[in-house]
Amino acid sequence: MTDNRDEIILSWEELLDLAHGFLTAHGLSEPQARALAGVLCRSERDGGRSHGLQRLPGTLETMAHPTFNKHADPTVEELTPAIIHVDADYGFSTLAAERGLPLLVANARRLGIAILAINNGFHSTALWPIVEDIAVQGLAGLSMNPTHDWVAPAGGTGGALGTNPIAFAWPRPGHPPYVFDFATSAAARADIALYRQEGRQIPSGWGLDREGQPSTDPAAVLAGAMLPFGGHKGSALATMIELLAGPFIADRTSRQSAQFDQQAKAAPCHGELILAFNPTLIGAALGKEGESQDAAEDLFARIEQQGARLPGSRRYAIREQSNARGIPIRRALHEKIISMMPDARPG
Amino acid sequence: MTDNRDEIILSWEELLDLAHGFLTAHGLSEPQARALAGVLCRSERDGGRSHGLQRLPGTLETMAHPTFNKHADPTVEELTPAIIHVDADYGFSTLAAERGLPLLVANARRLGIAILAINNGFHSTALWPIVEDIAVQGLAGLSMNPTHDWVAPAGGTGGALGTNPIAFAWPRPGHPPYVFDFATSAAARADIALYRQEGRQIPSGWGLDREGQPSTDPAAVLAGAMLPFGGHKGSALATMIELLAGPFIADRTSRQSAQFDQQAKAAPCHGELILAFNPTLIGAALGKEGESQDAAEDLFARIEQQGARLPGSRRYAIREQSNARGIPIRRALHEKIISMMPDARPG
Repeated sequence: MTDNRDEIILSWEELLDLAHGFLTAHGLSEPQARALAGVLCRSERDGGRSHGLQRLPGTLETMAHPTFNKHADPTVEELTPAIIHVDADYGFSTLAAERGLPLLVANARRLGIAILAINNGFHSTALWPIVEDIAVQGLAGLSMNPTHDWVAPAGGTGGALGTNPIAFAWPRPGHPPYVFDFATSAAARADIALYRQEGRQIPSGWGLDREGQPSTDPAAVLAGAMLPFGGHKGSALATMIELLAGPFIADRTSRQSAQFDQQAKAAPCHGELILAFNPTLIGAALGKEGESQDAAEDLFARIEQQGARLPGSRRYAIREQSNARGIPIRRALHEKIISMMPDARPG
Repeated sequence: MTDNRDEIILSWEELLDLAHGFLTAHGLSEPQARALAGVLCRSERDGGRSHGLQRLPGTLETMAHPTFNKHADPTVEELTPAIIHVDADYGFSTLAAERGLPLLVANARRLGIAILAINNGFHSTALWPIVEDIAVQGLAGLSMNPTHDWVAPAGGTGGALGTNPIAFAWPRPGHPPYVFDFATSAAARADIALYRQEGRQIPSGWGLDREGQPSTDPAAVLAGAMLPFGGHKGSALATMIELLAGPFIADRTSRQSAQFDQQAKAAPCHGELILAFNPTLIGAALGKEGESQDAAEDLFARIEQQGARLPGSRRYAIREQSNARGIPIRRALHEKIISMMPDARPG
């Protein structure tokens, strides 16, 4: 552990112990805690602090939701060879995803495509880890989910859509996968909250006030509605995510998820849709092995040669640093987590 | 046929005869001509003139491409139960899509999801008709394809991505389907060409000149590179479309499609990926029939109640007018098409 004033450096094992210890100390079952801690720590390690250990304190509100199940034990079911279903059993969705993954990968490899439909999971983690996990097994992965209905449709005045993230990964032999993960809202809700905290105005185009008028006041937008990225196109994409990761998998829309919360301020409870594609099956069937991977690499080279970044590149660079030198964590956050451990408190 | 100065009104049958007659007169096989004419006329009928009969004259350049096959006879093959494959045989992609559709729908209905992978099709038509055709059969449809590498990645300086359209449809019992169809470029190439024709500057954010600098000169952007919609998010989405509708289905990327054209100015020749989802299978398996459709309808109601439009609404309104009063077609275009009929020319 190497320190400076504002940060301490933890090894991967220390980081994982911290998160896992926090969650089990608050009564979360060991498998649930292991799965959630793993995903939070991967975000922290890769510089994705907004989805890292700063989410730990909020897990207490989620675990206090009347429906939350600290001993959720999701089971995997094959509804059809192409549809793997896991009910997260009102625990965190991470364990459900982890358990469904092997069958998803096996069936997608054989069939060319398969779906993992997760129901009833409390969700507060980034999507890129699950699609990266698919891609390191040689498949392409695509994942999406609703959230709460904080986002107005293009041309609208109030919340109807979630911030609806979408993540995609493509396997690259000899390279880490191509991975993107973005919210379909113009900005992240956490970013707007940060502007409010700092007393700054947000850029125009991020949101509307309660009357449905454009606003640059972060408090007004948090009370009103956010806007989708990219105008009517982003709005359409967010609607598709709402439908495919909601009604298609027989789970809540963002509006239903918000209603379900009942002001508990828990992580949104909803479904998650994960698709896996075998990127070599069609080429192999047509006697064109290898050509497709070459064409994909040519595309990535064209993008990078002109100075544009591939979406995952910053994450991979920080991961390399973290692997070499340990993972920096803000001292204030570290102290907050420790102070919230049950045995650190009197009584 | 009712006329005014600038437009003539055709019945659906007259419109179809015009397009079909043009194509067969130029040697296209009857099944190819029927499929392509149908899709072009549907766009014309629904007010989508950019993808309507104004595409007819350009089909001559496509049919003149050294690889184009006027007698293409695509056959449907089931690579796996989830992957239907049709080689368009270097004809227009519309006949391949039409022929693959029944097996796609049957297998998606049974499995929950299936894919139609079309290879080697010359493509110049809108994507919404194929996803609408899926949705009227009770399934959700998603389609995407590369084009030519006219679009720079976010942060880049030159073409690497196509204008890569994506279309999605969701079935609505008692209503026409929810349908969107948009290019992932900030603007359509045809729109930029229109600005050039009219001597106007294009909005900033649409493209770059040959040196990779932002430009509002339409000619400079057509010679340089277009930009994706929605910054790095739209750029990532366009890259996903490039990978899934290119390498995944063992077909050309937008760059390869441009190289294949060899300056023939034909419609781009590439693959097309179509996914179909059974929106009731998972709900039925979980004993929740009907709930999902209600949740989807609640979402659409929330969008419309606040004055925002559903993406397909303008198309449906114009379709209703066309069905009642006939389809208006610009007189100049009608005359041009007639004048290009082989038997209208001397010799």
